[in-house]
Amino acid sequence: MTSLRFRTSLQPVDASCIYRSGDSEDPRIGDICVYDLQSLPEAPCVVAILGVPQDIGVERNGGRVGAAEAPAAIRRALTKLAPTAFLSALQSGELALCDLGNIETDGKTLEQIHDEHYDIVAQLVRRGIVPIVLGGGHDCAWPTVRAISSDGQPYGVINIDAHTDVRPLKDGRAHSGSPFRQMLDMPSSCLAPGGFVEFGIQSTGASAHHIASVRQAGMHVMMLDEIRRDGIHEAWQRAMSHAAASGRTYVSVDMDAFASAYAPGVSAPAADGFAPHEVRACLTQAAASGSLIALDILEVNPRYDVDGRTAKLAAQLIADVIQGLASTRGAKS
Amino acid sequence: MTSLRFRTSLQPVDASCIYRSGDSEDPRIGDICVYDLQSLPEAPCVVAILGVPQDIGVERNGGRVGAAEAPAAIRRALTKLAPTAFLSALQSGELALCDLGNIETDGKTLEQIHDEHYDIVAQLVRRGIVPIVLGGGHDCAWPTVRAISSDGQPYGVINIDAHTDVRPLKDGRAHSGSPFRQMLDMPSSCLAPGGFVEFGIQSTGASAHHIASVRQAGMHVMMLDEIRRDGIHEAWQRAMSHAAASGRTYVSVDMDAFASAYAPGVSAPAADGFAPHEVRACLTQAAASGSLIALDILEVNPRYDVDGRTAKLAAQLIADVIQGLASTRGAKS
Amino acid sequence: MTSLRFRTSLQPVDASCIYRSGDSEDPRIGDICVYDLQSLPEAPCVVAILGVPQDIGVERNGGRVGAAEAPAAIRRALTKLAPTAFLSALQSGELALCDLGNIETDGKTLEQIHDEHYDIVAQLVRRGIVPIVLGGGHDCAWPTVRAISSDGQPYGVINIDAHTDVRPLKDGRAHSGSPFRQMLDMPSSCLAPGGFVEFGIQSTGASAHHIASVRQAGMHVMMLDEIRRDGIHEAWQRAMSHAAASGRTYVSVDMDAFASAYAPGVSAPAADGFAPHEVRACLTQAAASGSLIALDILEVNPRYDVDGRTAKLAAQLIADVIQGLASTRGAKS
Repeated sequence: MTSLRFRTSLQPVDASCIYRSGDSEDPRIGDICVYDLQSLPEAPCVVAILGVPQDIGVERNGGRVGAAEAPAAIRRALTKLAPTAFLSALQSGELALCDLGNIETDGKTLEQIHDEHYDIVAQLVRRGIVPIVLGGGHDCAWPTVRAISSDGQPYGVINIDAHTDVRPLKDGRAHSGSPFRQMLDMPSSCLAPGGFVEFGIQSTGASAHHIASVRQAGMHVMMLDEIRRDGIHEAWQRAMSHAAASGRTYVSVDMDAFASAYAPGVSAPAADGFAPHEVRACLTQAAASGSLIALDILEVNPRYDVDGRTAKLAAQLIADVIQGLASTRGAKS
Repeated sequence: MTSLRFRTSLQPVDASCIYRSGDSEDPRIGDICVYDLQSLPEAPCVVAILGVPQDIGVERNGGRVGAAEAPAAIRRALTKLAPTAFLSALQSGELALCDLGNIETDGKTLEQIHDEHYDIVAQLVRRGIVPIVLGGGHDCAWPTVRAISSDGQPYGVINIDAHTDVRPLKDGRAHSGSPFRQMLDMPSSCLAPGGFVEFGIQSTGASAHHIASVRQAGMHVMMLDEIRRDGIHEAWQRAMSHAAASGRTYVSVDMDAFASAYAPGVSAPAADGFAPHEVRACLTQAAASGSLIALDILEVNPRYDVDGRTAKLAAQLIADVIQGLASTRGAKS
Repeated sequence: MTSLRFRTSLQPVDASCIYRSGDSEDPRIGDICVYDLQSLPEAPCVVAILGVPQDIGVERNGGRVGAAEAPAAIRRALTKLAPTAFLSALQSGELALCDLGNIETDGKTLEQIHDEHYDIVAQLVRRGIVPIVLGGGHDCAWPTVRAISSDGQPYGVINIDAHTDVRPLKDGRAHSGSPFRQMLDMPSSCLAPGGFVEFGIQSTGASAHHIASVRQAGMHVMMLDEIRRDGIHEAWQRAMSHAAASGRTYVSVDMDAFASAYAPGVSAPAADGFAPHEVRACLTQAAASGSLIALDILEVNPRYDVDGRTAKLAAQLIADVIQGLASTRGAKS
């Protein structure tokens, strides 16, 4: 047993968001997830969910708000899923899953929230715990980047997104369109040379100037139509070869990378985009590669969702990542 | 001409559910379907639709109700479709399509409804008529299994589903999650050895225990991700090689096997799953194989549907099956 | 600079339908589209958008109305898209995009509206300007056909659609199901022999009689399931070899050719159909071939849309066509 303590207090997960079957023949993630941070099991692989219920950065970016409700919606969907693909890793003690709850966001500025987010994720990453951040808008990627950069080791980043999110700050302030601009402009960055990949960018969703600015920084923009032409499997291998070279990869998923048929509940839906199975396979592979150190699932907007479809997809992606992490640890042990 | 009579009285199809174009240059299924059971044409292939408007089994399983409204919604969509792919078989007298109406469900227990369902389907199958059952919840598979088992001949089953539906009874009673448990536990079953295939099961929708129990019975569980890896065409051939070896195959379709983008109106939607064209090709092929003796389309839930999308998909699948049946009879004749 | 004048007055685009970013680093189509027809730039390739806000033909065909609201909805989505894929063609002066506004439809008969539509499109085509018509119902294809036929030169047509739209007139009047019947029956038609291709027809959406009538006219019906069997890329090449032989191709897109998951907001949704990326690639290729002289995007019905999904898809298709046109001109210059 171990215990997780942070400088900042976290809001425990609301019981209404946790589904438990109570059926030993059919446990669900709500049954096997640890919510009591004082009794976290020691395990070679610990995954920690962290909710950031805010959409201040979306609002600053002129987007439609609602992402603040995402952590609750994703947890409701996630705790109902069966942990079948990683049950043996859980039972053997190779894997542990916990949910840290939410960062308290009421009455705080985005900058305060980002600082607490940074602080928690940095502690997790230093302890080798894999954080899965439930946003919140894409501004959440900025404190995650700062956190993984804080120990001075190189890292790579893959942003699965229809948009580049490299806009300049607004009035000097971060927003949901600026996180990777902030990352690229970071003074003493540990971002590996060529280690940042934008994956799934749509030409109708990103300006030529923004795309060029990423490439001018020596980084990579993989357009959706190029990914389709080359095949997503091959394209993802290429993305990983860029981002995982450092052995430390952070993957940020903007749910608007999916076609809106599959992910209607997002801040900025697009007609075309990935199908679920395409991204699922990529995430499982990234996690199974052993280099994944952090994951964000961002921009779910329950106010525009259709019967929880997008929250369920977000939950499925989380299960796929845990499956990949479990497969690595099982193989290593 | 022939006549269909059953021990139990059936509720005729409500006229509001039948679309007829009245246009000889553009007939629709509502124009060519026979609703008067006293004047059923003799034909080498007779397909009989049977509605079971209940969701008692869904409710017992803790699911969200609404499937009782499915037969009406599916018929509205089905009768509007053009029978183009099987028009020549209809015109040549090789094929006849009739709609028996609904089992009366008001004021009856699920067990009474199942008994009537069993009785009608058993009579149809013995006469070589192919029943297409419009559920209702997945508990409908249980009386269909009993019916095809009632003549003592071996049979195979393919369940196209995100879930295994092999849960134990609740308080000794059947429910929408138990039909294949009941089938596997049947004392004097005619189910062919290895003749049951679960097709499209999702690891986040089925427990390790339930999957193992199917495999321990010598049966097959084909997971969605494995089907995708192998290709659905190849996977379906393998499923058919297991289930159709007896020459008598029953296919049960749980509409939640589809991604919820395509089938939002179901009791238990999932973010990922089949696309329509994948399952359509499988069903047509199964019907064209000559071994299909019964089909169920289950778990459509109009209360959660989006503009009838799921009912239309269910109707399309029925047309695909009739197309396959017609192609066989045409080839044989 | 040039100026566009027509016999009939056009209703200027409502300002509420135009999104402009005002950001030189991230211009949107609303920023680069020309709305003042007196100051249209000269360019080797000029694309002109024309809205026809009516659904009279849909109503005559017994369909559900709402398509009259489509031009506004499509413009809202289109002007928000980034012109990244054709920005260099715009900047180099190879390409210009203008929006002519809407045909005035209030108080007019469908025949009057069609005549004005014919008049404007004919003038555009004669000047080598590529019109992109935003319907309205599929009856809009009829005046477009008359227009491209008016100069006595041969042409080809591809109709991307779930339906054949070759129904007879009703009481001697055109409707949304009759345009290609009118085209095939045109007395002195310039339609190239074998130059008409129906692409994506579904057997449950089209009668055997209608399909046969197209084939008897020496034209082509490519069914959705055949296209899938052969691969959409190969199938589209075949369609183009039929329709583009004359060097003048008109493509008409009925949005119900897409699966309703992707295009819920249409007059007649279908459970199955194309995915966005399939048709996108076809349209870009057709435009890049250099033979595209006119395009229609028809049957968007905002009343049944889900969060603007179908309008966004329509807008995406328009961007794809402009991208293809730009690539040709760039290559030529």
